[in-house]
Parts: sequence; structure tokens; C-alpha cells
Amino acid sequence: MSRAWLLCGAGWLLVAASGCVATPVPPRGTGDLGIVIERAAGRVQVVDTTHRTRLASVDGLGDLSHASAVYSRDGRYAYVFGRDGGLSKVDLLAGRIDRRIVQAGNSIGGAISQDGRLVVAQNYEPGGIKAFDADTLELLADIPSTYGTEGKRSKVVGLADLPGNRFVYALFDAGEIWVVDLTDPRMPAITRFKDIGRQPYDGLVTPDGRHYLAGLFGEDGVALVDLWRPELGARRILAGYGRGEEKLPVFKMPHLRGWAVAGRNAYLPAVGRNEVLVVDTATWQEVQRIPVRGQPVFVMARPDGRQVWVNFAFPDNGWVQVIDTLSGSIATTLAPGKAVLHMEFTPRGENIWISSRDDHRVTIYDTASFALLGQLPADSPSGIFFSARAARIGF
Amino acid sequence: MSRAWLLCGAGWLLVAASGCVATPVPPRGTGDLGIVIERAAGRVQVVDTTHRTRLASVDGLGDLSHASAVYSRDGRYAYVFGRDGGLSKVDLLAGRIDRRIVQAGNSIGGAISQDGRLVVAQNYEPGGIKAFDADTLELLADIPSTYGTEGKRSKVVGLADLPGNRFVYALFDAGEIWVVDLTDPRMPAITRFKDIGRQPYDGLVTPDGRHYLAGLFGEDGVALVDLWRPELGARRILAGYGRGEEKLPVFKMPHLRGWAVAGRNAYLPAVGRNEVLVVDTATWQEVQRIPVRGQPVFVMARPDGRQVWVNFAFPDNGWVQVIDTLSGSIATTLAPGKAVLHMEFTPRGENIWISSRDDHRVTIYDTASFALLGQLPADSPSGIFFSARAARIGF
Repeated sequence: MSRAWLLCGAGWLLVAASGCVATPVPPRGTGDLGIVIERAAGRVQVVDTTHRTRLASVDGLGDLSHASAVYSRDGRYAYVFGRDGGLSKVDLLAGRIDRRIVQAGNSIGGAISQDGRLVVAQNYEPGGIKAFDADTLELLADIPSTYGTEGKRSKVVGLADLPGNRFVYALFDAGEIWVVDLTDPRMPAITRFKDIGRQPYDGLVTPDGRHYLAGLFGEDGVALVDLWRPELGARRILAGYGRGEEKLPVFKMPHLRGWAVAGRNAYLPAVGRNEVLVVDTATWQEVQRIPVRGQPVFVMARPDGRQVWVNFAFPDNGWVQVIDTLSGSIATTLAPGKAVLHMEFTPRGENIWISSRDDHRVTIYDTASFALLGQLPADSPSGIFFSARAARIGF
Repeated sequence: MSRAWLLCGAGWLLVAASGCVATPVPPRGTGDLGIVIERAAGRVQVVDTTHRTRLASVDGLGDLSHASAVYSRDGRYAYVFGRDGGLSKVDLLAGRIDRRIVQAGNSIGGAISQDGRLVVAQNYEPGGIKAFDADTLELLADIPSTYGTEGKRSKVVGLADLPGNRFVYALFDAGEIWVVDLTDPRMPAITRFKDIGRQPYDGLVTPDGRHYLAGLFGEDGVALVDLWRPELGARRILAGYGRGEEKLPVFKMPHLRGWAVAGRNAYLPAVGRNEVLVVDTATWQEVQRIPVRGQPVFVMARPDGRQVWVNFAFPDNGWVQVIDTLSGSIATTLAPGKAVLHMEFTPRGENIWISSRDDHRVTIYDTASFALLGQLPADSPSGIFFSARAARIGF
């Protein structure tokens, strides 16, 4: 027998109903929720990281290859950006789509403003960004990535939120970095950094929101903007970073978003080499190279910075290695399953969830002991995104 | 007319009931919730930082002078530590006390384990720490702070959680720092650092969980333990930090927990002087002194580290100053109200909430423009604690 409380007029009435459960949306905290992208099925799983269980499956999200997600300020809703321009607002408590629009023809992720009011998508086609009301998904700003003199629009990459309801991103075709202030989304204020290098293909903001780095596909090196001192413009660092003059075979261009900053150092995937590079963030000079098992894709720091976890491009994409940042050596090598695509730490870093696309599972490890804590079945899982992202800058 | 869905057997039944509301606990996200301590009334307000409103008041929490709080892993429950040894588990969604115990005679705050399973209280009387099951508040470990040869127990101060379900704290009377591993709470493993200095009165862990610093009341200087390299033991830094040989009049010993780490520097309140000290965390040497309006109490970094907010001891406790960490100068001076006791940033730092005990209000500012966004009435408010703390290390 289940029971429900009904508030009638001024008093509470206890209703007992055999086999009945009141309300389809049970109240619960949202701080330990997350989603797992099932890329081939156009579906996400809603998961609970405390009990390591699946709570719901939500279908109908379109093409989820390369999908990513951000969270509403209250942690209840995930905004899922699909490759097909779909933007779906998923209600984690109800386990259903709350709203969904198709906002572009070819899209590559998005971000949410510091105050949680604006969800912004970055688009390849038509090139530019669009800002939507986080509650209603109403279009509030459409900023085409127009460059040059012929009115061409560039693909947009590397979008990240900044303090002050600003956003930063790179224009692949234009070789530019733009910072847009959307304090008033109807009146966007754009700052352009030109000639930052050829074909920026991804970008990231350091955890403190101060530095923006854009990797270059068309040449070696990385473009850097000190967002606290925009008057200095963009400068070039790590001149040797890239595919190099020999044009090494690169199985997969690593995600810059996978760079890790731990303590004073940044850890980044070498391009085309079985190495993780360590860079001093004061001088932006390389200080160490750590040999790893394959060509690194994501290089992610545990929240306390003591460990950096690394996955790899084919043919080494069944392995994950853990670097101890104190010793600079490999602490352990794990085999979570075939085709590891993504990793996500629980908010305080005690566990990590790893998706293995071709073994159709998510594997959960204890990050202190490396003990296997559990596995969840999933249909070709890719990205894993936990709701604690709602409280973080620069995603 | 309100309606409720009841799940009966295999189907859904829509129940219409005039004036009735199903379920007293409406579902909602918990990422934007928090509490404000009303110290004199033994009460907390449950607040919503998105709409800047009060959702509920929860009475019956005992003596809340110097009270603090930590959050359950899911963000639904606040554990409030009262001065009288009371430990209250407050359900933010239901707006009521879920469980409450009185676990000591004189207590001074607590912490929660990295995995969220253990809530730990630090006690003056009887001296020691106690660990409780976070769900049930069942006592799982009782670790007396016994020192010396006579079986005396020390007051415990400066408790903070560490990665690996460990906790660190200082023994005021013993001059020791202890690290306890509670991976198995029935078998605590204690590491003792002895002779760390006279009368440690508070402590803090750096945001990465690596360094523990304990301020000394009985002499000048600060005790430092590198928790990644415990074999090095405790060492002394900042030999001039403290009341000094002249024994300056100190209106209020500043909270160490109010130290801020922003970028490479730590910002800390000078003792007995109208200054904020800037310390390089690589060398632990003082690099700058910033003159401020009064004797600083809390020195808190905005999450992105660009600003440090400072409040003051009597008679300057009606002021708050903001330091721009790029220029090292004062960006603005604000007057939120009489007897400012505490400040809390929203999770991504766009707003700050400030309690003014003697004006009985909480004042909310935009941290970019310093615009006044709102005020909420509160009965002698002191600590403000938001649920995003659930995802952070070292509180």
C-alpha cells in the first residue's frame, strides 16, 4: 500500500491507496544526476552517481554523434546539443524531453551563461552562434560568423562561457577568436581578435576563466588570449604543437577541451605522438613529455589535480592510463572496454565513469584504489555529463 | 482545482480534487538552493538563488552561534552543526528537519566525506571527532583527541575533508595535526603530526586538497603540511604571521577558512592590522600587502579568482571591500548593512550574498557591476551556505 499526502484547504489529508503512487515526478536532489549519450540511438540515459544506477531513458534527440550537454542552474535540466542542430531540454526528474528545437543544419555543441539564463549553440552551418532563453528556448540572439569582405560565414568551434555572461569561440575558416558579451542578448557586444593563426579547430578556457587557448589545424602552435587583458591581443605559444613539418599520421585530432590544468601545469595531448605534454601555465613553455600507450584524445584532471586520466585514438582506444601528477609517471593502465570515447569524474572526484562504445557499457572505477565498482549497459555510449557542471565555469 | 496523477496497478489515473495539492514536496532541482543561518532564533531559511527568494523556514535547530553547514551528495539535505553539539539534517525540498541528534556538549562545525557517506563533527567538549552515517546519523566512529601521557583530550579545530574519505584537523591544546582515513569508519587509520606549533586555532585546505595550513594563536607563524608528501612532516611558514611581539589589539581572530586562493596567490587576513596579505603558494613567501578599511575577517575569492571580497571586525564591520586581483587594488567599497558576518558566492560567482546581522537582512550584489540586486529580511543572519558546496573538496 502506498500513501500520498494531499493538501486540501488548510489541512493535510493522508490518502491510502492500494497499489497507487502519487505524482509521476518524485522529489529528489539533483546534485548526483547525469546523462549518458547513446549516440546511435538518439537517446540519453539519466543516471544516479550515488547508487550507480540508470533512472530513465529519454528518446527522440536526433543525431547524437559528437553530442554534448550543459546544465540548467538548478541542475534539473540537461541541454543536449546534437550534430543535426537539435537542441533538446531534457527534464532529468521527469525523465522526458521538456522542449526541443532544431536550430541549425550542422551544429557542434554549446554552452550556458554564467547566470543560467542563456543557452548558446555553436554552428557549422549556417556558421555562427545562437542564444536561446534557457526556460523557453526562444531565440534571443543570432550572431553570424561573418568574416572578410564577401560576407562568408565561418564554422564556429571551441565555444565556452566566461564570467559576466560572455562567451568566447573561434572561427575555423576565418582564423579569428571572438568574445561576445550577452549581458543584453538583444544587443550583443563583440570583440574580435584577428589573424590568430590558420584554422583553429577547438578551444578551451582555463578553469579560472582567464586564458583562452585555440589549437590550430592549419599550422603548428596554439593561439592564446589573456581574457583579463584583452588589450594585449592574441599571441602564439607552443610553436611546436601540432602535426609538425613531417605531417605525422594523426588517427584522430585530440580534443582541446580535454586539456587538463592541475596545479600550475597544463597537461595536453601531443598530436600524432604517444605522449602527454606538460606545460607550465606561467611561461606557457613545455616542461615535460610523458610517454603513454597511444595517441591521446582526452587528458582529464581529477578535480584535486593529483591524477590525470588519458584515453587514446584507434588502435589503442581500449586502454585508459592514469598519470600521477606528483611523480609524473603512469600510476596504472586500465582496460575498460572497446572504443573508449569519454570519461567523467563524479563531482568531488572519488569515481570516474568511462564509456566504451563498442562494448556497449559504462565502467565505473574508484579513483583512489582503481577498483572496478560497476558497469552499466548502454547502447554505443559516447559523452557522459554530470549535473555538477551547472556550477562550473568555462564549459 | 488542482490535479494529481496516481499510478494504480498498471495505469495512470487522473484525480481532480478541489483545493487539493498532491504531495507536499514539489519536485525541483536542488542546484540553486541554499540556507541562511538565523543564529539567534535557532532557525534556517531555505533560499533559492535563481529567483532570490525564501522558500521555507526551519525551526528547532538549537544554538546556532558560529553554526556551519555541509551538503549531502545529492544537494537535497543540509547538515547543520550547532554550537551546542546539535547536528541537524535539514530537508531543503520538504522545508523541515529530517533527523536531528545532539552529539556533543560543545561543537564547532563539521565536514562530509568525499563519497558523501560520512558526516563528521569536530568537538571542543568532549574533545575529538565523531563520524555519522549521512543517511541515518547513526554513530560510526568516535575518535577522542587524546594527547600526552595523562589522557587529556584537546579541543578540535580546522576540520576539513580530503580526497579518499580522509579528514584533517588540528588539536588546539596539543599542538598537533591529525589526518584520519575513514575508508572503513569502524577502523580509522590516524596519522599524527606533532609539535606543529602552539595553539592552532583554525585550519584550511587549499582548493586542490594538497596543502593544510593551521594558524597559531600561541605564537606567530602558520603550520603547513603537504598532504601529498606526508613524510616531510609539518613545517612552519610565514614566521611573522600572527599578533606579533607587540601583541596588537585584535578585535576578532580572523577565520582561516576565509583565506582565498586565486591563481598562484593566497590572500589572507592580517592579524590586528588593516591589511590583506598576498602570499605566493609556490614559495609560501609574502609578496604584497594590500591596505584595507579595517581588520579583515573573511577574505574570499570569487570562483574565477579575479576578485577577492573582504569583510571586517568591529568597528568596521558595516563595510565590505573588493580587491581586483589583477591590479592588486581596491575595486569598490560597499556598505551592505550593520555587522556583516558572512558572504557566499553563487556557484559560478555572478552574485554574492552578504549577511548583516544587526540590520537583519541579506544583501545580494552582482559581482560584475556591483549593482544591488535585492535584499531579503532575516533574523540576525550569520552563515550563508549554498548547495553547490556538495561538489567541492576541503570544506
